[in-house]
Amino acid sequence: MHVGMIGLGRMGWNMSRRLLQAGHQVVAYNRTVARSQELAAYGAVPCESLEECVQRLEPPRVIWCMLPAGGVLGEYVSRLAELTESGDIVIDGGNSNYRDAPAHHERFAARGIDFLDAGVSGGVWGLEKGFCLMVGGPPRAYEHIVPLLRSLAPENGFLYCGPSGAGHFVKMVHNGIEYGMMQAYAEGFALLEHSDYGSELDHAAISRVWQHGSVIRSWLLELAGRAFTESPKLSDIKPYVEDSGEGRWCVEEALRSSTSAPVLTLAVMERFRSRDDAGFADKLLAALREQFGGHAVRRSAS
Amino acid sequence: MHVGMIGLGRMGWNMSRRLLQAGHQVVAYNRTVARSQELAAYGAVPCESLEECVQRLEPPRVIWCMLPAGGVLGEYVSRLAELTESGDIVIDGGNSNYRDAPAHHERFAARGIDFLDAGVSGGVWGLEKGFCLMVGGPPRAYEHIVPLLRSLAPENGFLYCGPSGAGHFVKMVHNGIEYGMMQAYAEGFALLEHSDYGSELDHAAISRVWQHGSVIRSWLLELAGRAFTESPKLSDIKPYVEDSGEGRWCVEEALRSSTSAPVLTLAVMERFRSRDDAGFADKLLAALREQFGGHAVRRSAS
Amino acid sequence: MHVGMIGLGRMGWNMSRRLLQAGHQVVAYNRTVARSQELAAYGAVPCESLEECVQRLEPPRVIWCMLPAGGVLGEYVSRLAELTESGDIVIDGGNSNYRDAPAHHERFAARGIDFLDAGVSGGVWGLEKGFCLMVGGPPRAYEHIVPLLRSLAPENGFLYCGPSGAGHFVKMVHNGIEYGMMQAYAEGFALLEHSDYGSELDHAAISRVWQHGSVIRSWLLELAGRAFTESPKLSDIKPYVEDSGEGRWCVEEALRSSTSAPVLTLAVMERFRSRDDAGFADKLLAALREQFGGHAVRRSAS
Amino acid sequence: MHVGMIGLGRMGWNMSRRLLQAGHQVVAYNRTVARSQELAAYGAVPCESLEECVQRLEPPRVIWCMLPAGGVLGEYVSRLAELTESGDIVIDGGNSNYRDAPAHHERFAARGIDFLDAGVSGGVWGLEKGFCLMVGGPPRAYEHIVPLLRSLAPENGFLYCGPSGAGHFVKMVHNGIEYGMMQAYAEGFALLEHSDYGSELDHAAISRVWQHGSVIRSWLLELAGRAFTESPKLSDIKPYVEDSGEGRWCVEEALRSSTSAPVLTLAVMERFRSRDDAGFADKLLAALREQFGGHAVRRSAS
Repeated sequence: MHVGMIGLGRMGWNMSRRLLQAGHQVVAYNRTVARSQELAAYGAVPCESLEECVQRLEPPRVIWCMLPAGGVLGEYVSRLAELTESGDIVIDGGNSNYRDAPAHHERFAARGIDFLDAGVSGGVWGLEKGFCLMVGGPPRAYEHIVPLLRSLAPENGFLYCGPSGAGHFVKMVHNGIEYGMMQAYAEGFALLEHSDYGSELDHAAISRVWQHGSVIRSWLLELAGRAFTESPKLSDIKPYVEDSGEGRWCVEEALRSSTSAPVLTLAVMERFRSRDDAGFADKLLAALREQFGGHAVRRSAS
Repeated sequence: MHVGMIGLGRMGWNMSRRLLQAGHQVVAYNRTVARSQELAAYGAVPCESLEECVQRLEPPRVIWCMLPAGGVLGEYVSRLAELTESGDIVIDGGNSNYRDAPAHHERFAARGIDFLDAGVSGGVWGLEKGFCLMVGGPPRAYEHIVPLLRSLAPENGFLYCGPSGAGHFVKMVHNGIEYGMMQAYAEGFALLEHSDYGSELDHAAISRVWQHGSVIRSWLLELAGRAFTESPKLSDIKPYVEDSGEGRWCVEEALRSSTSAPVLTLAVMERFRSRDDAGFADKLLAALREQFGGHAVRRSAS
Repeated sequence: MHVGMIGLGRMGWNMSRRLLQAGHQVVAYNRTVARSQELAAYGAVPCESLEECVQRLEPPRVIWCMLPAGGVLGEYVSRLAELTESGDIVIDGGNSNYRDAPAHHERFAARGIDFLDAGVSGGVWGLEKGFCLMVGGPPRAYEHIVPLLRSLAPENGFLYCGPSGAGHFVKMVHNGIEYGMMQAYAEGFALLEHSDYGSELDHAAISRVWQHGSVIRSWLLELAGRAFTESPKLSDIKPYVEDSGEGRWCVEEALRSSTSAPVLTLAVMERFRSRDDAGFADKLLAALREQFGGHAVRRSAS
Repeated sequence: MHVGMIGLGRMGWNMSRRLLQAGHQVVAYNRTVARSQELAAYGAVPCESLEECVQRLEPPRVIWCMLPAGGVLGEYVSRLAELTESGDIVIDGGNSNYRDAPAHHERFAARGIDFLDAGVSGGVWGLEKGFCLMVGGPPRAYEHIVPLLRSLAPENGFLYCGPSGAGHFVKMVHNGIEYGMMQAYAEGFALLEHSDYGSELDHAAISRVWQHGSVIRSWLLELAGRAFTESPKLSDIKPYVEDSGEGRWCVEEALRSSTSAPVLTLAVMERFRSRDDAGFADKLLAALREQFGGHAVRRSAS
């Protein structure tokens, strides 16, 4: 199948590679043009502009965007709404907020173009193992791109989730669960490390044994085993944890639907905590203890 | 190998079956004798008393206890300390608190007997897929029972964790992580269910697609897929969740080692919440809102 | 001072009464006109329309809105922007999201009108004890209305917080803290109630003794004492707790500013939990326990 | 009234002072004798030994212990059980675990001595404002010491809570609530500080205005106002927060009685977090993000 790939970051690059390996023809555009020329070595058709990318595809076109969520995607949606024509299909495979999809959908639909939102999971392993794909939007457009999905995903690794936004929504919840699971493992290994047995326990070996027959076996645990094998006590890693937005959106969704989701929420907030050097809340706690109980506070050098 | 199996509940039964399948000789005792006679159909030697069980084993004996934690185990430990002799090995494979192990260990060690604590994970699937085994205690005793561990576990599914108690400790943390992971999935599916897409989303299909290439693939997710396949909205299941003690012990351990473990802790407390019909805390919240804001409370029929 | 009061709900009514008691002249408008006529008995000038209300005030006018947040307020802002003139002051004293204030501010500022956002706390007790007032917006407008603030508040009970939105922002955080405190008391009394001493403990007496010399004395605790005095075990109150939006906004703010706020967040989510009869998350937990451990689930009648 | 005071730490000292001010006769013993001699300047009778202290009191004696909980108290209980005689009253006013009280009670009761457990709140302000006292044990002993309680407490500031342990139990829950309230305020002020208005907001002024008419007025908030007045941004205070044990006991109690207490629990764990420099859990989160997503981790210098 012919497909235009817009954006060759980590995800777009690996997805293009996987599509090319499966025999699809990838017409690639990336703002930094050198990146699409690199991909040409793997068989892609490199383009110098978005316009060229659209022109090189035969209608009905399939154009897959792997772009930063929010403003950048919005800008490309606007330009693509001008460049594409009735019968084309545009897919947003980025980490977009699911609530943006219906507006894009309607904008394209007004011109006869189908817009699909595709949640893509799998990270840097996707090229080798396949990506898990969750798709929302018009069913006929979904049906049309099934050959691409089949090549991108491992067997049984793609799903039509529902109307516009459903793909990104299911992906967002997926990421929320991911945060909760990661935090569960992190707390568990911290309990091991802090215990009286801590110095003797072999985190890598424990990660591995749990992969065989235990209730908590998972891919994340396999990765924990890899991390501990590389660095048994993670001693060179700073306890500083970024978040990419989808965890927060999950909490916002919990507020929106009045759903109690303490574990997903705490998992997000623990990341904030890891980046909070100032500790204003803790300072007030220490100050209050001094005020009512005369408990000494630790003073900083300042 | 010859092994005495004390206790033929769900776990002891399945472990005995798996040992028998692997060609070991199992001398079995269960308080309700009929159960050991049933196991005889699979090749076990049934005993009518603990004494008989010990006598039928040739020294050095290996005796594996799969008994309810706490009082029952303690009673059998006392009796076995009398019945066994120097060189024997006694294993506690139940869900015991890891802090009980050192005392048992010392009691047996004083008589030249080795005591091992073995955490066993795998649930009802262990017979088919093998049990994950985490063992603590004297290394030579561990080495001695490796043939049993190899038969009980799937490949690479057993580990010597450290000194007395380390096996049950690692198993306890395993269960804490299990609570956290389960709660993460539960909150995620609740977000799906409560959303605007809720009525259209197919939880079973989503569980399955996430198993293929996504970051959150795991055995628990596979089981969620099974549950949703059996009952798409779980409509006949009451929202009432038991806990078996190890989650609480994890929280106690967090307190003991001053480890912040919010996700493991909340996962335990959400279960308490599921069983709290009276809702005393919520009643006070409603009463307070009425007191300061004049907000109407809902009255019960009483 | 002359002041227009728009909206005579619980808060607008009590504030008008307090202003009238202090000798201010209140020109009152309420959608249901009967309500403003009732207020006339206390000395207010009742109006039949917003236009009449504006016309009856001498420029520079001071118009205080106590309206439902969101759409209703927005509608009145639009109409007041037409009816008022340069030099007038419009105040939003409702439970508005602080992020709405700057837009209102700019809209009025373009016509030379000052817009103030005023957070008002005190609930149904405000008439008797005074309201706590947190004000944001142009300082000169704040200075102008100080006589009103002085009459509405108890001594030292009003504050200029900062630029547009700061008043509602400080009020929003106030309410977040309120949620956390209420939940702390609720959990504490639940621990008392559920303990072995539970049946003997006198919650009303405990609430009262804690008011005298203890670290946790507070107005909310005084109200808890009232509630327990009225109903010692709160037995006729349903464990169903509403929330009014500001708690959620606090959580959204925590996400926005990457602030870990677990206690404020959990306090909000516990209210969601109190209203969740379906228990979908708990159902999945029960189903998973059955899947891996063979633990019986409770079935519903259906 | 005559009373023996054992232990002249911060609490014992202030309580003795308050009793002396009220005209009671205090016979004081402290391990470091100089301390009791200092107290003599305020009218106390200083003793050089526990024996002397007991002998100087006329039967029936009242002996109040303000000692470190656990081992030290246990040791004095043993010695007092030997030194006192039938009809005497021994009171434990320290921060003891309520579960220790019944054993002490029985030990003394066997010799005809009444043992009372008294929870004491009020901190360093107790001397000036009075202590809040929660008492458990034999009612007749409680009745006997009412004159002391009346002098120690502010008006209405003492309560008979129930049988042995009930006093310390109510005090423990009090402290759990204290943790939750403090954390609620701490998170709220952190939200203020981290917001776009942060640099302009005056925390001291906000603390003060909230004391006048707002729903969240409390003594702890008054103390926050003091702390912010002394140091507007708390810039010289380290974000390091101790805990004194009773918060943890509250969490253990929640586990014991299967009570969901997320806010009290998180408040305790946030303190652990403030003292966790190593950040093992966060390191694992960062490592996992690198493993699956190729997200860069921050490396430490080591």
